[in-house]
Amino acid sequence: MSQHIWPFTGTRIQTLFGIEYPIIQAGMVWVSGAKLAAAVSNAGGLGLIGAGSMKPDLLADHIRTAQSLTDKPFGVNIPLLRGDAEELVQVVLDHKVPVVFTSAGSPKRFTPTFHDHGVKVVHVVPSVTLAKKVEAAGCDAVVAEGFEAGGHNGVDMITTMALIPQVADAVQIPVLAAGGIADGRQIAAAIMLGADGVQIGTRFAATVESSAHDNYKQAVVNASDRDTVFHLKQIGPARMFRNTWTERIAAAEQRGASVEELRELLGTKRERLGIFEGDLDEGQVEAGQGSGLIRDIPHASELLHRLVDETHAAIRHGKVSS
Amino acid sequence: MSQHIWPFTGTRIQTLFGIEYPIIQAGMVWVSGAKLAAAVSNAGGLGLIGAGSMKPDLLADHIRTAQSLTDKPFGVNIPLLRGDAEELVQVVLDHKVPVVFTSAGSPKRFTPTFHDHGVKVVHVVPSVTLAKKVEAAGCDAVVAEGFEAGGHNGVDMITTMALIPQVADAVQIPVLAAGGIADGRQIAAAIMLGADGVQIGTRFAATVESSAHDNYKQAVVNASDRDTVFHLKQIGPARMFRNTWTERIAAAEQRGASVEELRELLGTKRERLGIFEGDLDEGQVEAGQGSGLIRDIPHASELLHRLVDETHAAIRHGKVSS
Repeated sequence: MSQHIWPFTGTRIQTLFGIEYPIIQAGMVWVSGAKLAAAVSNAGGLGLIGAGSMKPDLLADHIRTAQSLTDKPFGVNIPLLRGDAEELVQVVLDHKVPVVFTSAGSPKRFTPTFHDHGVKVVHVVPSVTLAKKVEAAGCDAVVAEGFEAGGHNGVDMITTMALIPQVADAVQIPVLAAGGIADGRQIAAAIMLGADGVQIGTRFAATVESSAHDNYKQAVVNASDRDTVFHLKQIGPARMFRNTWTERIAAAEQRGASVEELRELLGTKRERLGIFEGDLDEGQVEAGQGSGLIRDIPHASELLHRLVDETHAAIRHGKVSS
Repeated sequence: MSQHIWPFTGTRIQTLFGIEYPIIQAGMVWVSGAKLAAAVSNAGGLGLIGAGSMKPDLLADHIRTAQSLTDKPFGVNIPLLRGDAEELVQVVLDHKVPVVFTSAGSPKRFTPTFHDHGVKVVHVVPSVTLAKKVEAAGCDAVVAEGFEAGGHNGVDMITTMALIPQVADAVQIPVLAAGGIADGRQIAAAIMLGADGVQIGTRFAATVESSAHDNYKQAVVNASDRDTVFHLKQIGPARMFRNTWTERIAAAEQRGASVEELRELLGTKRERLGIFEGDLDEGQVEAGQGSGLIRDIPHASELLHRLVDETHAAIRHGKVSS
C-alpha cells in the first residue's frame, strides 16, 4: 500500500478496475502511449493508451510494451469515429486489455462484445441525455466531461461544475468527472459534486513519460487561465491553445465561413503537428483550462501521488469543522 | 443561532459581512428587489438588491423597504456601465448600505469613495488578470464568476472549476465562487476549490420572494442541462434560455452578422420582457447552467437553509474517510 492516502470512502471505481486511486489518466492522441499509461498504473491509478493517433499494429505494440512495463490494470481509449474502430477493438480483445474507454460514437456499438470478453467499458459524454444512453447501453461507468476539457469536446458547452451533479443524479453507474481538473483541490471538488473518481488529461500530458513534444509540455507550463480557445464547433469542437492558426479559424468563424472553408483551414495532421511535432504556431495544440494550474513537468508517478496528497489536503485543510 | 450547521471553519466572508453563512444571493435585474434580499439576509446569508434594472429613486425605495424588513446586513449590486452609476452610488451612500457589489467596469472607480463611507466593496470578475486588478484596487473581496453563470458574462469563457483555484492562488483577499452553483454539493465543491464562500443567482431567482415572472420561475424548474445558450459575445456576452429570439441571434452570429445587425436584433428591454414580463419566446430569459438542478420554487429562507444542509451532507455523506 502507498503512503499517499485517498481521503474518501467511496470505492466503486477502485473496485471496478482493481486500482488503488480512482484517478484515470485520459487517453490522449500523440501523448499517452505505453510509457505514460504504465507509469500511471504502476503508481496506483489507471493509465489509458490513446488509440486515437495509432494504427492497429502500433496499438498492438503499445499494449505489449505496457504489459511488459506493468502487472497492474491499464486501459485503451478508442474514439469510435475511427474508420478502423473495429480493428482497434479486435486488437484490444486479442491482447486481453481489461478496460476500454470509448468516445465519439454510440456506446451500444461494441459494449456487448467487450462484455462477452470480460472487458470493462466506460464511455465519455458531455451531457445528461447521453449519460443516460451510456447507462442504458450497459456500460460499467460513464465519464462526464465538461466544456473546460482539452481536445475534442461536446457542442452543448456544459461545464464540469454544472454537469457532474446532474449526471450523478441521472445515472446509477459510477461517474468519473473530467474537464479542467489539474490539481487535488479540483479532485476533492469533483467528489463533492457526486463523482466517484476523475479522468485527468492535460496535467498528465505535461509529465516526463508523456510522448508530447517538449514545446507542448512547456506551453502547458507557461499557460494562463485565458490561453485556451474553443473552436470548430461546426466540424468537430475542440479546445486548444490560441495561436496563429486558431486566430485564422476564429476570423473565419467570425465572418460565417462555410463548413468547407473550415475543413480547408483545418487541413490534416494538425494535432500531430501541434502536440507531437511541437509547432505551437500552426498546430492544433490541444489543452484544457486547467493548464493555468500546471507549473512543472514531473514524473507521472510523482504527479499521481501529489494529486492524492493535494486531494487529502483540500479535504483536511483546516477547512472542515470537526 | 440557526440549527443549520455550516461545515467549514474558514470564516473570512462571515467576518467581513457580519453574516452567519458565506452564501451571497446575487444581484439580478428584474429579480432581486427588497423582498428577496431581505429574506436571504434574515435567513443568515447576504441578500443583494440588483440595481441594474432600477432608476436611482426606485433603488432608494427598495433600500428603505429592505431596511424595514430586516436588521441584518444586506447589499446592493451596481453594474458600473450604467450611465447613472454615480447617482446609484450616491443613493447607496445616503442610505448607509453596508455592502456593495460592483461589476462591468473598473473596480478602481468608486472603491475609495465607498471605503471613505465605511462601505465594504466586492467586484465581480471572469479571469485571474481582472481578479488581481480587483485586489490592487483595494476591494474587500472578489467574486470569480465562471462561464456557466446566467446573465452577463466574460468573453474569456473560463469555467468555475478552472477559474476558482487559479484566482485563489493569485489573490490574498477572500474569494467568492459564482457560476452554475445551485445546490450544496456545488457549494462544498467551491470551498474545496479554495473559495471562502459562494454567490448564487438563478437558484434564488426561482424562489417565492423573487420578483421574476412566474413563467420565468417555471422555465427554470423545467430546464435541463442543455437549455441555456451563450450569445452576443460581440456586444455583451450573456447566458440565457434558448428560445425563438436566441435562435434568430444564433443564426445571425452563424452567418457573421455585424455588430449593428446584432444590436438591431437585440433591441431594447429584452431582459425585462423575458424575466419580468415572462415572455419566454422573445425575451432575454437569463439563467445559468445550474438550472438543470432546480426543481422547485421554495421560500428564500427555506432554500438558504437547505443549501447549508446540503453542503453539510456533501462533506459528511459517508464519503470522507475518518
